[in-house]
Amino acid sequence: MKKYIAEFIGTAVLVIFGCGSAVAANTLVANNGAEIPLAMSTLLIAFAFGLSIVAMAYSIGNVSGCHINPAVSIGMLVAGRMNVKDFVGYVVAQCLGAIAGAGILVVFFGSNAALGTNGYGEASALGTGAGTAFLVEVVLTFVFVLLILGVTSKTENTAVVGLVIGLTLTLIHILGIPFTGTSVNPARSLGPALVGGGLALSQVWLFILAPLVGGAVAAIVHKYVLDGK
Amino acid sequence: MKKYIAEFIGTAVLVIFGCGSAVAANTLVANNGAEIPLAMSTLLIAFAFGLSIVAMAYSIGNVSGCHINPAVSIGMLVAGRMNVKDFVGYVVAQCLGAIAGAGILVVFFGSNAALGTNGYGEASALGTGAGTAFLVEVVLTFVFVLLILGVTSKTENTAVVGLVIGLTLTLIHILGIPFTGTSVNPARSLGPALVGGGLALSQVWLFILAPLVGGAVAAIVHKYVLDGK
Amino acid sequence: MKKYIAEFIGTAVLVIFGCGSAVAANTLVANNGAEIPLAMSTLLIAFAFGLSIVAMAYSIGNVSGCHINPAVSIGMLVAGRMNVKDFVGYVVAQCLGAIAGAGILVVFFGSNAALGTNGYGEASALGTGAGTAFLVEVVLTFVFVLLILGVTSKTENTAVVGLVIGLTLTLIHILGIPFTGTSVNPARSLGPALVGGGLALSQVWLFILAPLVGGAVAAIVHKYVLDGK
Amino acid sequence: MKKYIAEFIGTAVLVIFGCGSAVAANTLVANNGAEIPLAMSTLLIAFAFGLSIVAMAYSIGNVSGCHINPAVSIGMLVAGRMNVKDFVGYVVAQCLGAIAGAGILVVFFGSNAALGTNGYGEASALGTGAGTAFLVEVVLTFVFVLLILGVTSKTENTAVVGLVIGLTLTLIHILGIPFTGTSVNPARSLGPALVGGGLALSQVWLFILAPLVGGAVAAIVHKYVLDGK
Repeated sequence: MKKYIAEFIGTAVLVIFGCGSAVAANTLVANNGAEIPLAMSTLLIAFAFGLSIVAMAYSIGNVSGCHINPAVSIGMLVAGRMNVKDFVGYVVAQCLGAIAGAGILVVFFGSNAALGTNGYGEASALGTGAGTAFLVEVVLTFVFVLLILGVTSKTENTAVVGLVIGLTLTLIHILGIPFTGTSVNPARSLGPALVGGGLALSQVWLFILAPLVGGAVAAIVHKYVLDGK
Repeated sequence: MKKYIAEFIGTAVLVIFGCGSAVAANTLVANNGAEIPLAMSTLLIAFAFGLSIVAMAYSIGNVSGCHINPAVSIGMLVAGRMNVKDFVGYVVAQCLGAIAGAGILVVFFGSNAALGTNGYGEASALGTGAGTAFLVEVVLTFVFVLLILGVTSKTENTAVVGLVIGLTLTLIHILGIPFTGTSVNPARSLGPALVGGGLALSQVWLFILAPLVGGAVAAIVHKYVLDGK
Repeated sequence: MKKYIAEFIGTAVLVIFGCGSAVAANTLVANNGAEIPLAMSTLLIAFAFGLSIVAMAYSIGNVSGCHINPAVSIGMLVAGRMNVKDFVGYVVAQCLGAIAGAGILVVFFGSNAALGTNGYGEASALGTGAGTAFLVEVVLTFVFVLLILGVTSKTENTAVVGLVIGLTLTLIHILGIPFTGTSVNPARSLGPALVGGGLALSQVWLFILAPLVGGAVAAIVHKYVLDGK
Repeated sequence: MKKYIAEFIGTAVLVIFGCGSAVAANTLVANNGAEIPLAMSTLLIAFAFGLSIVAMAYSIGNVSGCHINPAVSIGMLVAGRMNVKDFVGYVVAQCLGAIAGAGILVVFFGSNAALGTNGYGEASALGTGAGTAFLVEVVLTFVFVLLILGVTSKTENTAVVGLVIGLTLTLIHILGIPFTGTSVNPARSLGPALVGGGLALSQVWLFILAPLVGGAVAAIVHKYVLDGK
């Protein structure tokens, strides 16, 4: 049970700090036109998501492994490092945590509008369509899960695993924010979409499906192409 | 005695570099309208606070453990890792260090106005009211102290503990600056408020109380929910 | 074969995330005049390239050593840490990976214009001529390969090698972007130049030759000046 | 001899990358008014100096200890970790390296104007006078050298020493750039001042003297206040 509580807390923190930093930046832009150039907030938000992983990896990592992301859990499942029962438990805990995190953001900001949601088409800064957005999310998640499977399989990396995974998530947000806002995490997309509703909710299917595909493909490539002797 | 001197120096450095970077950014903005967009200074100040922890953790960590924050010390007290006598000594040293640090900033800037103080209501960039500000500070400090208790309880993390705690404080400032300027540290708020006076001093109660609540709750959650077998 | 596949994937990821972040920033600038100040995108792109190395070092490092750069491979060859057959195989895999990465960027952006290419003269933000650009690239690559040879020769550094090399590449981009866009990597320059054509292709010779010179000189200085007892 | 060559190379790299990034940012500002907000270039330059230390620490650290700064060497001398003969040799090598680095910047930029020099009064962004600037440099260098003495005295930190020192130098630049441009390093100030001349040369005495005072005081505080059982 303890590990599910850990996943719940970890995913809530990721949504509060990652999505919350995006909402704060957007709110200040809306209040004060020229205050936050887009690239500035891209770097700011990219560090917020990445450092959320750093913080949680060293808080709950020894309890649950700190997946806090169904795409990571599906990678672990496909790679044979997790059983189906735990996979289901983890994903449920992650989704509930993300919803709770989005709920806390509603209290913080006094509104459920624009909770750091992901999107394509008119919701994309670059105007990226659904097909390309799907491909972008698959590639982004592939790189993320490939790194996680690689860095966690060498014991001499133990001390830096959380730093490396966090900084890689920062990287993935630097590239992905202009396209889709960067999901690579179905729970992180679902929480704000359910609480905020609207366009984000109608587009959330893509940010559930594409990261799961990317995570599963990464596990296959890691296992059959890169791993082993 | 040595450990109290270490806490004094460490907290002074945190205020000089963290608050000082905020004052420098604000001063340049005041002199030169459009020079520093708010989000830019958010990332700058967030790194200043976080890297102050990195610097001090590896300077005084082996002397006092580098709490330099009463909310961290209360977490250690509640978690049973510190006795009451040391807790009182640490908190006194931290508050005196923060006052000394704020005094040095007065010399640096030639003024005691706006010393990187924390605030709510009209003093908040987002206009966050007292109730929400209290909740924000509790959540921010909860995450900070939960991480500290987690990362310091695994010996294989020793080399990176200071980096991880510092980068987590950077994260916490990225989210918190638009709300309250981010305290999560009663000493860091008290020093500049006492030296600067005015609105900051009348609001400082919140930034003493909320971080202590957040730190204590984190210790309880760490001990009874996450820790152990 | 596995190590060549690893180099292919790693170099593709470097081009997708490093060059892709530059293209995204430039596209948003083109769409929206004042949105991304140049220095902002410099830091953003510098972190994108550096963190791509972090991600790949811990994904494929134990398979191929994660050179993903012919200038690194020539340094390893000159330093006697790699044989000629592997050098040729690595360089071919790296170039094919960079071309594949540039191809994926065409899909992402729906265009092959300005794929994060390197340049001098009119293609340089500072207007740097070919001669100076050559010298800049030699110095930048010298520092990069000298660091790689140094950090990988002490076993106590193992856990942080990828972080250190990545952050050094960030440093090198901070200085180099205003001059040439920073190559220090013939494959990273060749891929976008071949796919995009035009001015970048006619200037690509410099970004193949200068990094190879810098990498080879670094190996000689490391071996005969700094290394050994 | 090898260690003096290492100090020469390391200090040259620090000046080329640290000061060079400042010059590039300033040049782009001069060419293109609103392109680089001051706070943006502060963070950019702060990372350039800090990551130069990261790069050099892992390139030459096992040869010379990578002081590349007379204020660090005087701290080591006062702390009894270095003899007078080596101190003199290191300082000479550092100053020659800084002059060589500044010379290379003249080639890169085609001009010896404004080579990332330090200054006070009219040369300070905040208009800080000589007396306060002296105090600022003493405090900044005190924190830097205190950290270096602390982090290098625990063997379990070995792998991260270079990262910690580099990130601390980034911190010190975040606070110090608005005051003096941040020296904390007599060689780094002397090189550009000698090559560039003018106001920087007439003010360079302060940036030689104050860092040496700060470094020596740090060694005394480390030895008699913080160190030992």
